[in-house]
Amino acid sequence: MAEESNAPAAAAPAEPSKNALKKAQKEKEKAEKKAAAKARELAERQKKEAADSEDISKDNYGELPLTGSKDFKPTNTDRVDLSTIAEHEGKEVTFRCWVENARSQSAKLAFLNLRQGSNTVQAVVAASDKLSKQMVKFCGTVSTESTLAVTGLVKKAPEPIKSATIQDFEIHILKLFVEAKAEVPLPLQVDDAERPLPTEGEEEKAEADGRPLVSLNTRLNNRTLDLRAKINHAIFDIKDGVCQLFLEFLWKRKFKLFQTPKILGAASEGGANVFELKYFDRSAYLAQSPQFYKQMLITSRFPRVMEIGPVFRAENSNTARHLTEFTGLDLEMEFQEHYHEVMSVLEDLMLFIFNELNKRFKEETELVRSVYHVESFKLPKSGEVPRIPFQEGIKMLREAGEELGDYDDLTTPQEKHLGRLVLEKYGSDFYVLDQFPLAIRPAYTMPSPLDPKLSNSYDLFMRGQEICSGAQRIHDAELLAKMMREHDPPIDPNGAGTKEYVDSFRYGAPPHGGGGFGLERIVQFWLGLPNIRMCSLFPRDPQRVTP
Amino acid sequence: MAEESNAPAAAAPAEPSKNALKKAQKEKEKAEKKAAAKARELAERQKKEAADSEDISKDNYGELPLTGSKDFKPTNTDRVDLSTIAEHEGKEVTFRCWVENARSQSAKLAFLNLRQGSNTVQAVVAASDKLSKQMVKFCGTVSTESTLAVTGLVKKAPEPIKSATIQDFEIHILKLFVEAKAEVPLPLQVDDAERPLPTEGEEEKAEADGRPLVSLNTRLNNRTLDLRAKINHAIFDIKDGVCQLFLEFLWKRKFKLFQTPKILGAASEGGANVFELKYFDRSAYLAQSPQFYKQMLITSRFPRVMEIGPVFRAENSNTARHLTEFTGLDLEMEFQEHYHEVMSVLEDLMLFIFNELNKRFKEETELVRSVYHVESFKLPKSGEVPRIPFQEGIKMLREAGEELGDYDDLTTPQEKHLGRLVLEKYGSDFYVLDQFPLAIRPAYTMPSPLDPKLSNSYDLFMRGQEICSGAQRIHDAELLAKMMREHDPPIDPNGAGTKEYVDSFRYGAPPHGGGGFGLERIVQFWLGLPNIRMCSLFPRDPQRVTP
Repeated sequence: MAEESNAPAAAAPAEPSKNALKKAQKEKEKAEKKAAAKARELAERQKKEAADSEDISKDNYGELPLTGSKDFKPTNTDRVDLSTIAEHEGKEVTFRCWVENARSQSAKLAFLNLRQGSNTVQAVVAASDKLSKQMVKFCGTVSTESTLAVTGLVKKAPEPIKSATIQDFEIHILKLFVEAKAEVPLPLQVDDAERPLPTEGEEEKAEADGRPLVSLNTRLNNRTLDLRAKINHAIFDIKDGVCQLFLEFLWKRKFKLFQTPKILGAASEGGANVFELKYFDRSAYLAQSPQFYKQMLITSRFPRVMEIGPVFRAENSNTARHLTEFTGLDLEMEFQEHYHEVMSVLEDLMLFIFNELNKRFKEETELVRSVYHVESFKLPKSGEVPRIPFQEGIKMLREAGEELGDYDDLTTPQEKHLGRLVLEKYGSDFYVLDQFPLAIRPAYTMPSPLDPKLSNSYDLFMRGQEICSGAQRIHDAELLAKMMREHDPPIDPNGAGTKEYVDSFRYGAPPHGGGGFGLERIVQFWLGLPNIRMCSLFPRDPQRVTP
Repeated sequence: MAEESNAPAAAAPAEPSKNALKKAQKEKEKAEKKAAAKARELAERQKKEAADSEDISKDNYGELPLTGSKDFKPTNTDRVDLSTIAEHEGKEVTFRCWVENARSQSAKLAFLNLRQGSNTVQAVVAASDKLSKQMVKFCGTVSTESTLAVTGLVKKAPEPIKSATIQDFEIHILKLFVEAKAEVPLPLQVDDAERPLPTEGEEEKAEADGRPLVSLNTRLNNRTLDLRAKINHAIFDIKDGVCQLFLEFLWKRKFKLFQTPKILGAASEGGANVFELKYFDRSAYLAQSPQFYKQMLITSRFPRVMEIGPVFRAENSNTARHLTEFTGLDLEMEFQEHYHEVMSVLEDLMLFIFNELNKRFKEETELVRSVYHVESFKLPKSGEVPRIPFQEGIKMLREAGEELGDYDDLTTPQEKHLGRLVLEKYGSDFYVLDQFPLAIRPAYTMPSPLDPKLSNSYDLFMRGQEICSGAQRIHDAELLAKMMREHDPPIDPNGAGTKEYVDSFRYGAPPHGGGGFGLERIVQFWLGLPNIRMCSLFPRDPQRVTP
């Protein structure tokens, strides 16, 4: 802090105007006030220093210097994970945590709620002949969200502590050091981030108990505080889990993980929704999917390939289920006899993921769903995933009163409607639509041998919403070029970027198919969340590129 | 094919000029020639049809219709993996493969080298009273790289077959169907892609045996054929392996996999080497690293985070070890007492990867190194990774005759020189330099408590080349802002993108550190390859954005 000074008042002009006089007077009063405050502060400091000299606990609490900036170790002892607390009953432990809240009950007693990961524990600090009132005061007033190194005795709680996840034990504090102090006030209370979003379209509002429902925008503007909420840790634990399960399943089935380029020399997949960038002295484009490249890996004789990577869509859609950057889970594989071999892999993959999420991420799933009052995710009891021909889906919708043509694409409301009908009929929130109309699929989709207006393509759905689109791809260069020329809009098979893709099928490409999942969608629909942005760490949409 | 016609000759003008007459005459001759050719073709076809009607094998070979385009299954039988061939001795098997080469020995005998994955097997087809000469001819002339469905008897080879990876067995062909025919000629022989690159700077050249050493450019221009080479399959199997080992090790240690945004609202990490893109009605930038975001995850109370994702550098460097897009393996973690906790994780991670590569990818590693005559990768015998203070490295280099100041950065040749000295002294190709000069590190690096001109930062090296850069990061907002302002060049801590990063440290951020690896570099230096492009599927550099 800069030294205080009376300079402004002293520098007043020699023949002051009325206003200037008033101002000078004000400045003087202000300076006097400051001087008085300073004197008080000094007196308090002296009083505190005197007290400190008598403070029997003075080496057991306080603010530590910035770890790493000085040549010392903050506690120089092993720190424990609170999930193992039961093993330490009756013993002294040291652990890192942060402050959910701290409150002084009296001059002799303070309570703190401490959090470490998803665990919270109650801690008590009581003055005694071995622990000073000064230390109790310090502990009871430490700011929320500060990071601490705490040493204490693990004791059985006299009765279950309902306000903490660890209900059977409490910590009797012996030492408490602040490793990193949180500023006050916080721009967002982590506690408020635990509560549901206001209904779509609504801004911030108060619930019955007077606590606010904070808008998504406010949360995302303060995302690093928002993410601290347990519900958000659960969402991203599950997202990490989906990646882990995806890889676990596919590595076991001999898929290899690849990284295809995200910077492309041409907008080869169609120019409308592509981001353009300056690439030295030319233009380049961000990949809208790894489609062409994962197929080119098939033509490079890698029989089973997968990728987890960013996908970029310059789509000006401001909906609850679109992002301009999301994570694609992609796979592509040779098949031997029929493209349903690929569909089976996709179905089995998702069944594996759902079943394992139910096992390995049960608590996280329940925590999130409980906040949003979401039904559990119904899996087919038979173990057989409903595989519904598109034409059958149309029929079901028509019988339920929807009006649509045989080869029409489904609108989002129609998809959701079909989801409800399938759930009713098959008892499953997960199903596949097969044999989509050719005209509404990409040009590289293999036409159906059953009906030239259909195609060997499919979508996978969760709760009536698409999570994966896939197909058998054309593996013959001439047919591919023909279908590109006849596509609406037509694609030039000799165009930049496209030619290399088409040519890669000239040298003995095997029959193959695959699919691309949106990772955030899988998480969103698994948990039944109202907005896909909740499943992206730092979501990107047409309005948002920060933080 | 379009119907032939005499129209051009018939349409000649009534009073033709000399030139026109000549032209008409030529057209006429051409038409006559074509008609003759057509007649010959017809005769041959009739002859062939006659022969076919006597062809006892006519249902056992030929070109299949495009799989999936007709409602049939090509072989309608289980297909085997050639790696299990020994289990099928004496039995009939069906498998997919492609043609390495096919050659007719006589009218009654042909040999084929067939490949499936990394396995190759010799197949023989011999005319008999059950197998026609027509079939032998078809098999002996099928084009290289065509994809086949082959049925044959597995027989013990009379003597080891040196030209195949499967040396003890051969296939006696019973049926051979072309699933996808390769065009001729191939723009690049896969066989040539198995051979080393010409020495740097050289273009294509012939080796002693007359076979060409094809330049990297030619290979990359025909990358999908190039990638078919066994050496390239080995490289990318190892790359997949490094990802797998990275995740396996870190998941076990409670790291979580995250995806941070690649599109940023501001060039927050310094503007020089960043790609700019058009983002709706504004500008945005491609992430040069996940640095800010992985730290913001630490401040979001995720204690251990990792990412595998693309990294974009708009650096106009045309060297053998730079790419404009590569794969970052990143991690960041809280530590409790000292940043060497982080260094230990990084060292143990790499030791785990190296040891497991030696176990799980021994064959692939040896295949690649044998082509380039590369020494094995030396690991520290003691198990202790050499941890060399930067000042000690300077001393070693000076003693070896290099001239440099105490706080100078090392040049690439100096780094390589130090690598040789460390190998000599410690017997290890893997080591860490610790406590780098502060001035040559990013602004968010924690200064050293030992010497204010040093920092708590480190690089990891393989064979004298950097594969990972890391450090303890400043976790105090005020110190971070100060160091940014004092940095050369200075960074505005209140700038777009930067402010949110700095502010995230205001609410109790724990001490933390991490590191970022270049995946392609790990693979390159593990194998001792001359160019990093060989470790990127479709490499991107200032000159190349295709295919």
